Amino acid sequence: MENEISKIFGIRAIIEAINAGKTISKVYLQKGLSGHLFSELNTIIKREAIATSYVPVEKLDRLSKYSNHQGVVAQISPIEFVELDDLITSTLNKTTTPLFLLLDRISDVRNFGAIIRTAECTGVDGIIIPNHGNAPISADTIKTSAGAAFKVPICKVDHIKDAIFQFQSAEIQLVAATEKTDDLIYDIDLKVPTAIIMGSEDRGIHPSILKLVNYKAKLPLLGEIESLNVSVACGAFLYEVTRQRLKS
Amino acid sequence: MENEISKIFGIRAIIEAINAGKTISKVYLQKGLSGHLFSELNTIIKREAIATSYVPVEKLDRLSKYSNHQGVVAQISPIEFVELDDLITSTLNKTTTPLFLLLDRISDVRNFGAIIRTAECTGVDGIIIPNHGNAPISADTIKTSAGAAFKVPICKVDHIKDAIFQFQSAEIQLVAATEKTDDLIYDIDLKVPTAIIMGSEDRGIHPSILKLVNYKAKLPLLGEIESLNVSVACGAFLYEVTRQRLKS
Repeated sequence: MENEISKIFGIRAIIEAINAGKTISKVYLQKGLSGHLFSELNTIIKREAIATSYVPVEKLDRLSKYSNHQGVVAQISPIEFVELDDLITSTLNKTTTPLFLLLDRISDVRNFGAIIRTAECTGVDGIIIPNHGNAPISADTIKTSAGAAFKVPICKVDHIKDAIFQFQSAEIQLVAATEKTDDLIYDIDLKVPTAIIMGSEDRGIHPSILKLVNYKAKLPLLGEIESLNVSVACGAFLYEVTRQRLKS
Repeated sequence: MENEISKIFGIRAIIEAINAGKTISKVYLQKGLSGHLFSELNTIIKREAIATSYVPVEKLDRLSKYSNHQGVVAQISPIEFVELDDLITSTLNKTTTPLFLLLDRISDVRNFGAIIRTAECTGVDGIIIPNHGNAPISADTIKTSAGAAFKVPICKVDHIKDAIFQFQSAEIQLVAATEKTDDLIYDIDLKVPTAIIMGSEDRGIHPSILKLVNYKAKLPLLGEIESLNVSVACGAFLYEVTRQRLKS
């Protein structure tokens, strides 16, 4: 595993890579770019729901190490994402008590990496992230995950809600980690098929998602600080699942 | 709270600050420095067991923003450290079930900050760190702690072992977080007075410390990755204490 995530430069090369089925984690585009070929790329990016970021040309110069990037640099994902359908089916074939983790826009790569690492250590069957708004699987993510990013299946969805509906169909209970409840995580039965949802560092879980879950649960906060680091909270939640399942 | 930690430059100014009782978190010294005044400073630094780091002159120039630093820059700690004696006495005066946290050379400021934050959220009565080998309380530490560094008493000791002996005298049980055991943290009674020990990111707890504790305990690791991020592990330990104490 290289410490450097592979990149592709140039509009035509990136179009070819996407059409060839390469997993692109993000496309960096020069501000103010236009033209026929750029429109073609933009259409494909939208169709495939690839994450994008508009950046100054200086950033593209650095990303491409001053190659002729034509205003576009794409980051190839070092991991292959799985389809949610396939993930749920294959998991239900091997266990009667699956454990999934949904991340609603975790923005910090180090938090994301630490969460993937904890997920691997607690036997999480798969992590679901949204196509947009989540930290990318960068070299830093993989390093912080201690390599767990290669071991836990990761699934990208257009909207976290799509995943919630699929879990509901499969009779997997949804437990949201949020302070907007009186219920402690310790009082919820986690020995049944479960998907835990963790929210973003600054805004938590989106209110429209909170409406859809079976349980809202929190960790006790005994001091004055109103929230934990998200990777720490995620660890305490996942280890409560582990504890309950080991005891039973 | 300024985002910048205060600094003092120049040998005489630093000697005066130390003698005036200012808490210095670290002194940066120019490599190859010598002379009468420097010897005087060195003697005081050793007497007070202040952490030091020998650095190239360019680093001192940056730290002092190109002031006339005379080869020495001291970082003033934004927090006041407490004495371990005082911490134990005052804690035992207010609770019959104290909870302390000993950190054996946590090197990453973000891990350190997240740990302080979790400690505040789980009602830890005090954190004990070694004078040397621990991440400093920098602006990053305070930021990652979400301000908890100002709320949880922090205590510096020459050696973690000194703290262990004091806890033993006070009949506070010592529980070391380590993979070198078959015992799970869930099987240990944490409702009694307890000090949890967490080890450094790369080497864990020093073997000579492991010999002195009442219990060695681990979290179950269900995957292939052999360890958790230390701030996540610390969170799972501290929340197990919280869970047991809430249930009782």
